[in-house]
Amino acid sequence: MTRPDQPSKFKAAVVGGTGYGGAELIRMLLAHPSVALARVSSIDQVGQPLESVHLSMTDTGLTFEEIPLADAADGVDVVFLGLPHKVSSTLAPEIEPLDAKVIDLSGDFRLRSVEDYKTYYGEDHPHPEHLDGRWQFGLPELYRDEIAQARRVSSPGCFATTIMLALVPLAQAGLLKGPVQVVASTGSSGSGAYAKAGTHHPIRVNNLKSYKHLNHQHTPEIRRILGEAMERGGVKTDYALHFMPRSAPLARGILSTSFVRLEDSVTDEQIDEVFRSFYSDSAFVRVHGAGSRTAEVVAIKGSMWVDLSWVISEPDGLGGRQLAIDTALDNLVKGGAGQAVQSMNLMLGLPEREGIDAPAMWP
Amino acid sequence: MTRPDQPSKFKAAVVGGTGYGGAELIRMLLAHPSVALARVSSIDQVGQPLESVHLSMTDTGLTFEEIPLADAADGVDVVFLGLPHKVSSTLAPEIEPLDAKVIDLSGDFRLRSVEDYKTYYGEDHPHPEHLDGRWQFGLPELYRDEIAQARRVSSPGCFATTIMLALVPLAQAGLLKGPVQVVASTGSSGSGAYAKAGTHHPIRVNNLKSYKHLNHQHTPEIRRILGEAMERGGVKTDYALHFMPRSAPLARGILSTSFVRLEDSVTDEQIDEVFRSFYSDSAFVRVHGAGSRTAEVVAIKGSMWVDLSWVISEPDGLGGRQLAIDTALDNLVKGGAGQAVQSMNLMLGLPEREGIDAPAMWP
Amino acid sequence: MTRPDQPSKFKAAVVGGTGYGGAELIRMLLAHPSVALARVSSIDQVGQPLESVHLSMTDTGLTFEEIPLADAADGVDVVFLGLPHKVSSTLAPEIEPLDAKVIDLSGDFRLRSVEDYKTYYGEDHPHPEHLDGRWQFGLPELYRDEIAQARRVSSPGCFATTIMLALVPLAQAGLLKGPVQVVASTGSSGSGAYAKAGTHHPIRVNNLKSYKHLNHQHTPEIRRILGEAMERGGVKTDYALHFMPRSAPLARGILSTSFVRLEDSVTDEQIDEVFRSFYSDSAFVRVHGAGSRTAEVVAIKGSMWVDLSWVISEPDGLGGRQLAIDTALDNLVKGGAGQAVQSMNLMLGLPEREGIDAPAMWP
Amino acid sequence: MTRPDQPSKFKAAVVGGTGYGGAELIRMLLAHPSVALARVSSIDQVGQPLESVHLSMTDTGLTFEEIPLADAADGVDVVFLGLPHKVSSTLAPEIEPLDAKVIDLSGDFRLRSVEDYKTYYGEDHPHPEHLDGRWQFGLPELYRDEIAQARRVSSPGCFATTIMLALVPLAQAGLLKGPVQVVASTGSSGSGAYAKAGTHHPIRVNNLKSYKHLNHQHTPEIRRILGEAMERGGVKTDYALHFMPRSAPLARGILSTSFVRLEDSVTDEQIDEVFRSFYSDSAFVRVHGAGSRTAEVVAIKGSMWVDLSWVISEPDGLGGRQLAIDTALDNLVKGGAGQAVQSMNLMLGLPEREGIDAPAMWP
Repeated sequence: MTRPDQPSKFKAAVVGGTGYGGAELIRMLLAHPSVALARVSSIDQVGQPLESVHLSMTDTGLTFEEIPLADAADGVDVVFLGLPHKVSSTLAPEIEPLDAKVIDLSGDFRLRSVEDYKTYYGEDHPHPEHLDGRWQFGLPELYRDEIAQARRVSSPGCFATTIMLALVPLAQAGLLKGPVQVVASTGSSGSGAYAKAGTHHPIRVNNLKSYKHLNHQHTPEIRRILGEAMERGGVKTDYALHFMPRSAPLARGILSTSFVRLEDSVTDEQIDEVFRSFYSDSAFVRVHGAGSRTAEVVAIKGSMWVDLSWVISEPDGLGGRQLAIDTALDNLVKGGAGQAVQSMNLMLGLPEREGIDAPAMWP
Repeated sequence: MTRPDQPSKFKAAVVGGTGYGGAELIRMLLAHPSVALARVSSIDQVGQPLESVHLSMTDTGLTFEEIPLADAADGVDVVFLGLPHKVSSTLAPEIEPLDAKVIDLSGDFRLRSVEDYKTYYGEDHPHPEHLDGRWQFGLPELYRDEIAQARRVSSPGCFATTIMLALVPLAQAGLLKGPVQVVASTGSSGSGAYAKAGTHHPIRVNNLKSYKHLNHQHTPEIRRILGEAMERGGVKTDYALHFMPRSAPLARGILSTSFVRLEDSVTDEQIDEVFRSFYSDSAFVRVHGAGSRTAEVVAIKGSMWVDLSWVISEPDGLGGRQLAIDTALDNLVKGGAGQAVQSMNLMLGLPEREGIDAPAMWP
Repeated sequence: MTRPDQPSKFKAAVVGGTGYGGAELIRMLLAHPSVALARVSSIDQVGQPLESVHLSMTDTGLTFEEIPLADAADGVDVVFLGLPHKVSSTLAPEIEPLDAKVIDLSGDFRLRSVEDYKTYYGEDHPHPEHLDGRWQFGLPELYRDEIAQARRVSSPGCFATTIMLALVPLAQAGLLKGPVQVVASTGSSGSGAYAKAGTHHPIRVNNLKSYKHLNHQHTPEIRRILGEAMERGGVKTDYALHFMPRSAPLARGILSTSFVRLEDSVTDEQIDEVFRSFYSDSAFVRVHGAGSRTAEVVAIKGSMWVDLSWVISEPDGLGGRQLAIDTALDNLVKGGAGQAVQSMNLMLGLPEREGIDAPAMWP
Repeated sequence: MTRPDQPSKFKAAVVGGTGYGGAELIRMLLAHPSVALARVSSIDQVGQPLESVHLSMTDTGLTFEEIPLADAADGVDVVFLGLPHKVSSTLAPEIEPLDAKVIDLSGDFRLRSVEDYKTYYGEDHPHPEHLDGRWQFGLPELYRDEIAQARRVSSPGCFATTIMLALVPLAQAGLLKGPVQVVASTGSSGSGAYAKAGTHHPIRVNNLKSYKHLNHQHTPEIRRILGEAMERGGVKTDYALHFMPRSAPLARGILSTSFVRLEDSVTDEQIDEVFRSFYSDSAFVRVHGAGSRTAEVVAIKGSMWVDLSWVISEPDGLGGRQLAIDTALDNLVKGGAGQAVQSMNLMLGLPEREGIDAPAMWP
């Protein structure tokens, strides 16, 4: 599988390709019918064939190259940045002049508040002017048209995507009120490709634990987007988001449960309508609804699909009903590289599902 | 390891010993310094040595016997019932006349409401008079003295124990107000020893999902005990419990996260004091508190220990602070057989930790 | 994703589509660029959409149909039989008159010896004349041309494929001599989609064990093919195959280690040449050789790729050197449905890798 | 659980207590009825309570101390060295003068050949005179009496124990002839407490692979002991050991399969007699024999028990029968710390099983 010139295809580059996100980007771009992967840069493994790091690959014909961003972007239509948080942002001045469209997978361009950035990422943003709106947030379910027009897309975080897909329809409908409690559990691939204590197999394989308690860095990006969803819906409701992330003993997948209080008067049909109408033209969200299938990780791992289900309690004597929404997705696909490719499809005018609509494997 | 007469020891019998709960009871009783396991009855595997079913055991000198309850209880000091829900209750008339103390591990004698029983177990209780209080609820952290005096103890459910240990101190202190949201994830041993779809390895090993959404049968027993904790504290607060159980891909352990709203005026120190004072003489609860260790399953699996930790948000602009409490325990030990043995120790006047205070294995 | 008429595509049917093999066949056929999946029959789940059983799928536009084989095969170019052992064979008279090409995934048409069939499958073959050679054995690495000409293909077993790919090159080269010892471990999906004791999660997740000790039903099919490889190589050597299957706690993948004695005079280069020349035009076998990468399941799970590596001891003082060959593949893909599609590609004159050359996911 | 003076108990110290082996030693010594754990030294985590590293422990009353070996050994009856390979050996001069009995868990004193040490551990032994026999090899099944008399015991490796228990009876009986092939798979705890690439959860949880192919450092210690078993049996047979280690995706446990050729004339009864008589007074080996239970990890994890089973082929036409022996044990217990405590029991004149005879947990 060499990479010959394919003049009729768009060309893409991956900058930072040795991690799990990079591996997924490469996997999807190599298989994409309308896009050719031109090159992959990195700062380690330089000169090695891709398949010597990503053992899953075969004869890619590509090696990791250590080259400046401008050279990586030379002659390509789209550049993916698969760099760690706080590294992407340092490249802002080099990104600015690029002709190529750019999709960043880090957290560095997702926020609009320099204070939030500092609070959650622990440092001042080196180029805070990049939080001014020049980066389009890459959640196609909310911003399909904007992404299609964008030159710079900041792709959402894995937990953030999982939770936003549960809450955005409610926010837009004016139903997000009061304290909102979320527990979301992630597989270990979310911690990246380098071994560390939290992903040491003898511990992780027998463990369930919370971490970054009520303090995860995806919280401000969720809050920002919920606010924009309210604006879009022409509503303004008071709510507070309390998110407890958890680690779980599997490699891939996130399951989130979000608790939202409804007034007694809100009906089951109303909630059903909110979710079904919001996702009526969604490319990848499968709305199961109450009493039908439940969202589960095994059904979506390795794929772009998102499962969404919910349950509503009877009025509980405290003036409301409890809504609990479950969403499940693959943290590296819809929660990562795949969602970035979905944005790329939109930015290049390609069908939204092109090249990324395979089912999960069963089991 | 034959079972000779040990006249100086108390004698125990296990009725229904082929499941995982039975295995744990047998394991702990065989090793108990003050109690001898006299016999184990069952309706299947009759005549087989215990070690032919529980492959972990060696030369127990005991076989599964199919005998009436009265015979199983004959000459022993304590009988453990390790039977399925809706089977224990049918034995109520046979339990009544027994001289031996009885500890039941099913859900059949945990409630005080026949309506709740029917709602959550799907059938009328065959002997509803047994829900009148004659069975002491076996949560030693709340009822140590009562258990020590009891002749009949109904041991709590695994999820229920995990969640009650998070919420009972708050209930007793008058701090349990408003909607309370709980997500608790369990290992697969909670589903019992017989293979079924939800514990089919190819699916379970890659899965996270919710089930019995806001509708788990442990909910009414938690509510009952929270009410009694309020009475004990001389308080009465309005709250509603919304519990989402989850299955997780490990064999043992439960982690629960419970969200409780606090008023702005409640201080960190106040919460710290509530938990620390409640558990100051607790035999097995390790209170880690905010900002210290977090509750995690790997630290307690296979043991009686319970880890409890919490975090409190700053005032969130909605008139309150969000408290999130995590508890972790082993569903088959502190959440099952081990807790029953803890009650037995109290009932027989033995030290509460005797025979059951081993640490977890690491890892 | 409806299934419109696609007149330029070949048409395929799957008979017996509710198991894991069926799920993989459906997944690959739905995505195949040159073949359309026309229908899926089954005896259970009749009338249900495919995606209600294979939760990984979305809007297939197909339901499980209970129809006779002749109707399932009506108007299609190729029929896959995804039926249990001892069920496929009963359909032999119905298969005979079909115009469509047929690929059977069971063990029922893999052998040439009625005695072996009875010994390993426990029953007389109901149509022993079908063991006469009318079914081509579907191992493309050995029979590419024969498969391309065949109307009936019997696709190999998962363990058999893993082990044959290690041993066939040696057999053909006349190097397979003396006792050959094999240990191969499989993931739990090899046991099928229905829950049973051996795949009960609480046990399987913590277990390693052997089963069908030196007695697995794939043994005779391996022996048959090794014999044919010798004939092809114009050699005849005495050997005996001793295969110990093992179950391992993961969902997918097989790793086999095969021990073959070499004479002292056999050189490393000679073995290297045997494997590299045999697989020089192989579509999916990656030959890593001694001292390079080792075969490992994580690198191939979910894909068609096979990793092959080996090590040779120094002369060990007993007149020989010990060769140990490792092969790894996915039991449901190259060891199952994917290999059947590989045969289909050859039978239909399509490129051998078409539609099935995706890399594994990493991780 | 403070550590008061317990004058009637023996006293023990652990040197190097922060790893998994150290954790198991501490767990077993804290619970031992006749031995008190006096102190635990380490070079990291100094000053921390044991339970801050081994989260499974509670109120041990002990902290990690950084003290010279002589001080650690001061006033205690037995010292356990839980240090890495190539660290224990550097302490040889300090060990020499100690009055306390010493049990070393590293590989540094297991061999009798300085060449083997250099070959397999990569360095010259710093004190090669310590390979002269002054350290008793700590395999109680072979050396019970010698251990009881020993002042210095070198405890066997985990793989080595698993494989020796399969092969030693055959070696002693003169039945170990020709090439012997072994595949043994280990859980991830065998790699120690520090995170590394091979135990990175996202990879390990989906992987099976071989490593240190035919070259594992336990090989020479197995060969040494097999030779001594032959001497004890008054036999001398030619054989060669070829051992392929594997990593498996579980935390604890080893399963080994060993292939030994038997002459046609060897009967099933003869093999049965060899194993049963050898282990007739064994403290922890459960001999299941052919056609009965198979050795499996889930039955022994967390315990001292060893399961041993085997199968013998019919004469295979090559002048022999193939014997395949499976053994299963817990790498950290019978394959590590527990076996060291078993030696300690013998050295102190205590019952061999004292304090370490608990069953595994089920499941």
